[in-house]
Amino acid sequence: MLKPLFTTLLISALSLLSTSAMADEQKTYRWRLAETWPKDFPVFGDTVKSMAQRVKEMSDGRLIITIDSKNKHKAPLGIFDMVRAGQYQMGHSASYYWKGKDLNTMFFTTRPFGMTATEQYAWFYYGGGMELMQQVYQPYGLLSFPGGNTGNQMGGWFRKEIKSIDDLKGLKMRIPGFAGEVISKLGASPVNIPAGELYTALERNTIDALEWVGPSLDLRMGFQKVAPFYYTGWHEPATELQFLINEKAFNSLPEDLQQILMVAMRASAYDMYAQSMHENALNLEKIATQYPDIQIRTFPASIMLELQRANDQLIEQFKQQDPLTRKIIESQERYQGIARPWTQISDQVYLEIGQ
Amino acid sequence: MLKPLFTTLLISALSLLSTSAMADEQKTYRWRLAETWPKDFPVFGDTVKSMAQRVKEMSDGRLIITIDSKNKHKAPLGIFDMVRAGQYQMGHSASYYWKGKDLNTMFFTTRPFGMTATEQYAWFYYGGGMELMQQVYQPYGLLSFPGGNTGNQMGGWFRKEIKSIDDLKGLKMRIPGFAGEVISKLGASPVNIPAGELYTALERNTIDALEWVGPSLDLRMGFQKVAPFYYTGWHEPATELQFLINEKAFNSLPEDLQQILMVAMRASAYDMYAQSMHENALNLEKIATQYPDIQIRTFPASIMLELQRANDQLIEQFKQQDPLTRKIIESQERYQGIARPWTQISDQVYLEIGQ
Repeated sequence: MLKPLFTTLLISALSLLSTSAMADEQKTYRWRLAETWPKDFPVFGDTVKSMAQRVKEMSDGRLIITIDSKNKHKAPLGIFDMVRAGQYQMGHSASYYWKGKDLNTMFFTTRPFGMTATEQYAWFYYGGGMELMQQVYQPYGLLSFPGGNTGNQMGGWFRKEIKSIDDLKGLKMRIPGFAGEVISKLGASPVNIPAGELYTALERNTIDALEWVGPSLDLRMGFQKVAPFYYTGWHEPATELQFLINEKAFNSLPEDLQQILMVAMRASAYDMYAQSMHENALNLEKIATQYPDIQIRTFPASIMLELQRANDQLIEQFKQQDPLTRKIIESQERYQGIARPWTQISDQVYLEIGQ
Repeated sequence: MLKPLFTTLLISALSLLSTSAMADEQKTYRWRLAETWPKDFPVFGDTVKSMAQRVKEMSDGRLIITIDSKNKHKAPLGIFDMVRAGQYQMGHSASYYWKGKDLNTMFFTTRPFGMTATEQYAWFYYGGGMELMQQVYQPYGLLSFPGGNTGNQMGGWFRKEIKSIDDLKGLKMRIPGFAGEVISKLGASPVNIPAGELYTALERNTIDALEWVGPSLDLRMGFQKVAPFYYTGWHEPATELQFLINEKAFNSLPEDLQQILMVAMRASAYDMYAQSMHENALNLEKIATQYPDIQIRTFPASIMLELQRANDQLIEQFKQQDPLTRKIIESQERYQGIARPWTQISDQVYLEIGQ
């Protein structure tokens, strides 16, 4: 009698043990992600959805990420704080939105006259950029990763043509952040207006110009109906969005799920750059066929030169503020200094063939 | 007595069942990958290693991919056949190497005067390129995926300066494939020489010129010591390598491992484009500092025009060969036709600022 009973108990115990081990391995982690964007926002929102879908499929359902959009959490510029507090394990936003909290966050999105998207990805992943970004975010208990690139952003929609620096004097333009400071040095008045009011502001002459993203996202806003001059870009050559992760939440994941999350973010971020190219191409064609009166222009060289000078002055001021700021800027300047000559003799020369 | 015995048996049976279910889920798949490249080949080889490492980590060791390099399998151009036969589950190579087996494979790497890397990624993933590539590979029981981009390749190393079309007449140049056919229409003699003999052939005037990749991989070959003119590119604007997978092997994987494999390949392929930018930048700087006598040149416009004409003629001939060939070429032409205007008003105009 003793033996079978003992066996029964042993098997029961082993069985329980095995069930429990399986349960641990099969544990489902449920994460919440807050994004800055409205629900179903094209391109940006697609990037978040594809990342979450890939994580779900690769983890066989062991890591499920639910996405809350702006309409749900009501705090599009509160992502940093909400992820820091652990209210959300994860966010999708843009690093330069946090410059009021920490100036050094501003340099991990893009900057006027900075690197192209490919140069910048090379800097992030092979040129020391990731390490500097983590140095900036580490004190906040946050991890930051590239979150998708828009490519070169257009300089904006203008109601009147800009022929000389005089045309910029007093010009009221929606152009936030660093670029707004640069253009204000040339006499323009940068203003900030919520996205939902931009079209009306431009239509009613409350503002004379605005910049948004590029053909990929601009046409749905309707700007082409009220501002006939569409200027090429100088101020955001490679806007990289951001995945933010609460470090404690990340550390609580098993190693395989950490890797799954990191590779999914990386692939989906790169994908956004290709998708932006696609959407820009389709929508630029739409401008040509459906809005043939739109004039695509580039600022005259004299204006570009002044913008560059103003930008250089601001950059010099930033360098004085903090040794880490200087370190980041110098790393980017050094990198752009070696990457740009290659871009010039490869893609640039190639694009000039036959023109 | 009956009850405990029954319970014992039941528990044993359940326990066995559970062990077997666990074993299935924990089953380790061991795959072999054959790459065209030598062992520890920079950039290309790094891409394969990073893919295999990511798969291992994300699958928690459930899918292990062992890499065999050229020195092991001795068949650098046998990847297609070996993966097709199931001798290897997977390969890393370049699609245009298989043009002798199927002309249509040639169009999924790059082609003279074709798309840039970003345009081409957009075409693959958002413009129908992947679907066309699978249509070409499906009859062979193979799956093909982008395997990493070199970026714009240099036009090659020349012992003498090329000033006019006359300088191309009779020029012996190592330039394989499609580009070789194009340049032969201008009177040059394309020759094929194994990689290991290239330096000696150039040094001893057996050939007058050669193209390889770009600064990222050229300097280790030593060409800069014997050919002072380094020409910019026209023939391979965005060389994409290839991951090849045996379809039956792929289908035998559980769905989560299939996803892990696909996302790892995708991230590592994109990474290679960024790594190529990095290595090109570093090595171009090395040319400037260590080999200042190297002259970087672009073919005169008259030569470019003739190369384009010859290319157009060849493309027209290809279109006549097979309805699928025509479909692929027309898809690429249409895509480049809408993507290029965007590239021009974004990155190209931006790169021209301040020059």
